[in-house]
Amino acid sequence: MAGRQAVKAVLIDLSGTLHIENTAIPGAQDALNRLRQTSVALKFVTNTTKESKKNLLERLQRLNFNLQEQEIFTSLSAARNLIEQKQHRPLLLVEDSALEDFAGIDTSDPNAVVIGLAPDHFNYETLNKAFRMILSGAPLIAIHKARYYKRTDGLALGPGPFVKGLEYAADCKATVVGKPENTFFAQALSDLGCRPDEAVMIGDDARDDVGGAQATGMMGILVRTGKYREGDENKINPPPHLTCDSFPDAVEHILKNLL
Amino acid sequence: MAGRQAVKAVLIDLSGTLHIENTAIPGAQDALNRLRQTSVALKFVTNTTKESKKNLLERLQRLNFNLQEQEIFTSLSAARNLIEQKQHRPLLLVEDSALEDFAGIDTSDPNAVVIGLAPDHFNYETLNKAFRMILSGAPLIAIHKARYYKRTDGLALGPGPFVKGLEYAADCKATVVGKPENTFFAQALSDLGCRPDEAVMIGDDARDDVGGAQATGMMGILVRTGKYREGDENKINPPPHLTCDSFPDAVEHILKNLL
Repeated sequence: MAGRQAVKAVLIDLSGTLHIENTAIPGAQDALNRLRQTSVALKFVTNTTKESKKNLLERLQRLNFNLQEQEIFTSLSAARNLIEQKQHRPLLLVEDSALEDFAGIDTSDPNAVVIGLAPDHFNYETLNKAFRMILSGAPLIAIHKARYYKRTDGLALGPGPFVKGLEYAADCKATVVGKPENTFFAQALSDLGCRPDEAVMIGDDARDDVGGAQATGMMGILVRTGKYREGDENKINPPPHLTCDSFPDAVEHILKNLL
Repeated sequence: MAGRQAVKAVLIDLSGTLHIENTAIPGAQDALNRLRQTSVALKFVTNTTKESKKNLLERLQRLNFNLQEQEIFTSLSAARNLIEQKQHRPLLLVEDSALEDFAGIDTSDPNAVVIGLAPDHFNYETLNKAFRMILSGAPLIAIHKARYYKRTDGLALGPGPFVKGLEYAADCKATVVGKPENTFFAQALSDLGCRPDEAVMIGDDARDDVGGAQATGMMGILVRTGKYREGDENKINPPPHLTCDSFPDAVEHILKNLL
């Protein structure tokens, strides 16, 4: 441990890292339990735009993962924080399953576009409505800008391409609230009482998980599950602290070398 | 004519240059007939993604323009040429009204994505299909990349945002086939038997018509009709060979000075 602090917190991505849809990554539950036997703080950070925190928790508990709702920090929480702070009335382009996390927000006569992964809303008419609102001055807020994600039937478009298209059409820049934004990682760490250089992020997305976390001063571990494609580790600079096969290997590395 | 070849071919834009919707530019039919009395070859070049060559021809003939179907070269023709040359089997994301220009093209088991302005196809499922094809190595071919266009009810998204989204998702670059691409002008000239420096382009779009043509070595004449706005001639470098009031003046200049 020469030259650096012992790790005090581990941030863990969910989809693609702990599970793929309703299947756990082999050994991930046990690996998580091993981490819990140490003194490190844990937070589960996810760029979900579809699932409320409650849904995520239920899904993970069904897969026998040991975690609590307050340990989950999502891009939807980050979006809600921003909307409340700016007092926006959003046009919410998110799936119905995510609406729960926006309960109580005024969406009448909308003056801001909030866009997540919302296949049902990704049609010409709705995107054109959003485009015209942006031309009239409405801010464009992206839950995140992931290019794609891993579905059981293969890779599928994320919200990123639709955000990018609106940015191009209206010649604007979206405010992104999810990973890999610095503010997202800072908020995730805020109640754990440690500095970024005392934290590790584990995820399957080289840019959004590893690159984003490392840009804030954390260490990033890339796992070769989920959306990982060969060579992803070469797409970010600096490269990941470590690239390994899966979450259990990442935990093994932390237990052996970083505590 | 010191220092340059006599002009052997004239390329002419349609909408905004010969006509605006269903009204001809005054004197344009006669000016076209005067050009036909010389030995110059003619071609009519346009960036449509919705109208087949036959539709365009019928519209122009109703306005008493003297032209033949084989003299029209559109961004749809350019796409077809590229598809045939590369022996692609395209997934055609174009409106039904444009499909006619792809008659006879094998679209079974597609291995290339061709995208125009196609609101009916701009939904998550179809775009995801295109995305997966591109990830598997299919080239992305854009009829053009306009950000938006003017509809009677206001501005509306063009094909550009959807092309941009797919480029972002798959980390690729579309091959654009319409104006102002070099290849578009090269193909338009290809069966006329003359070099770019023996040709003139006349159009109302400083960037797409005049700038694009001049970048290939042609002369460009900008007309102050259609989408022309004061000062457009200063938006490109080098400036147009000539800026004049309308198509008849452009023809007059060619007849007097360039033959």
